[in-house]
Amino acid sequence: MKIRVGFGFDVHQLRDNHPFVLGGLTLPHTKGAFGHSDADVLLHVICDALLGAANLRDIGFQFPDTDSALKGVDSKLLLKKTIELVSEKGYSVSNIDCTICLQKPKVNPFIPEMKAIIAGILETDIDAISIKATTTEELGYVGREEGVSAYCVCLISG
Amino acid sequence: MKIRVGFGFDVHQLRDNHPFVLGGLTLPHTKGAFGHSDADVLLHVICDALLGAANLRDIGFQFPDTDSALKGVDSKLLLKKTIELVSEKGYSVSNIDCTICLQKPKVNPFIPEMKAIIAGILETDIDAISIKATTTEELGYVGREEGVSAYCVCLISG
Amino acid sequence: MKIRVGFGFDVHQLRDNHPFVLGGLTLPHTKGAFGHSDADVLLHVICDALLGAANLRDIGFQFPDTDSALKGVDSKLLLKKTIELVSEKGYSVSNIDCTICLQKPKVNPFIPEMKAIIAGILETDIDAISIKATTTEELGYVGREEGVSAYCVCLISG
Ligand SMILES: [Zn+2]
Ligand SMILES: [Zn+2]
Ligand SMILES: [Zn+2]
Repeated sequence: MKIRVGFGFDVHQLRDNHPFVLGGLTLPHTKGAFGHSDADVLLHVICDALLGAANLRDIGFQFPDTDSALKGVDSKLLLKKTIELVSEKGYSVSNIDCTICLQKPKVNPFIPEMKAIIAGILETDIDAISIKATTTEELGYVGREEGVSAYCVCLISG
Repeated sequence: MKIRVGFGFDVHQLRDNHPFVLGGLTLPHTKGAFGHSDADVLLHVICDALLGAANLRDIGFQFPDTDSALKGVDSKLLLKKTIELVSEKGYSVSNIDCTICLQKPKVNPFIPEMKAIIAGILETDIDAISIKATTTEELGYVGREEGVSAYCVCLISG
Repeated sequence: MKIRVGFGFDVHQLRDNHPFVLGGLTLPHTKGAFGHSDADVLLHVICDALLGAANLRDIGFQFPDTDSALKGVDSKLLLKKTIELVSEKGYSVSNIDCTICLQKPKVNPFIPEMKAIIAGILETDIDAISIKATTTEELGYVGREEGVSAYCVCLISG
């Protein structure tokens, strides 16, 4: 059995009166993440970590933002396509650990539901999916509430 | 044996004439890291990476900054409690690799002592604990000496 | 067999009319990465991740920027020396996953050639080397085109 590690990092701008899709949920907030697709930074970093671990390029390569069919697309579909690509290459997910960097709102209450959504798409045990959250102590673009970023590491095996 | 990966990221503001606790040491400097607990960004990212690897939520969940008992607390105690939680779930530390992002002062001379402190708390071989340091080339809040950040990846097995 | 994880993060300033060395290539662009050595942020994070995984300190420790012999040095030599140090400690590379954060230019077209260069230096299968790229959506010093940053995670075994 071969074990491989992957890593994802992503950023989206926060804009006033925009829906805030994160981890497959729409968060109640005055701002939301902006970008091609639904700008779900958490699902995007999981895609990128899995694609990187399996050496399948990255989310921008697999799902180009120049593809008008992907405009506003639900990122759950991108994650589903990602795990299919990873599976086709013979790998399965061992575990995933994500970190959301966001000044507001508090995401801790939403984490159990996000984990269930992601485990469902990846068809893994829910204990394989960890999501953490931190502010950046009011520093940088995350601290100024101009953006949201996220990290993900994963192990896959096959 | 099951192997899992974890990741931690944390940021603290630097303030003038504040003690600078990092890696369990107090660094000689004109500024220090500010925050709940002793604001030890290095020990915090190790906690978060270990909690994430074991799927035990995050440092803010386990040790809420709304808990007045944890005001100014020595982060070595938080790391001790973290490794107890991880052990209770049946995992032990394989290795840890940390990166401190700080413009000043140079932390390289302090790294061997920090590694010994952390290995002592985690009860691991010192070769399991790596600490690296980098500036951000005067860019961003780290470069402007407004903050200190750190990253940690870890492998645990059980 | 022992498996270890490593992580690297690095930043360089972008300056006008400076050569932009990235992944062992010189990119056509109006700006380039500035720093000691050739400022190749991608090769630097791979060095740091490998050194961290093997617990061999970091790139600044192994190749000090106070060493005038290393001024303007080709980072491919630093990566070659790094893999020699890692091999001497008894480890070999399992896989590497890198993320370049850069607003412009697009690096996707150059990734296959970068992977080949890196696999050649590390003497690994090209499937062991993943390189991803992302913008930061015009946020922060990367978004303002003041800098380029990169991340790398790796697994080594021995
Ligand atoms: Zn995205
Ligand atoms: Zn902290
Ligand atoms: Zn560098």
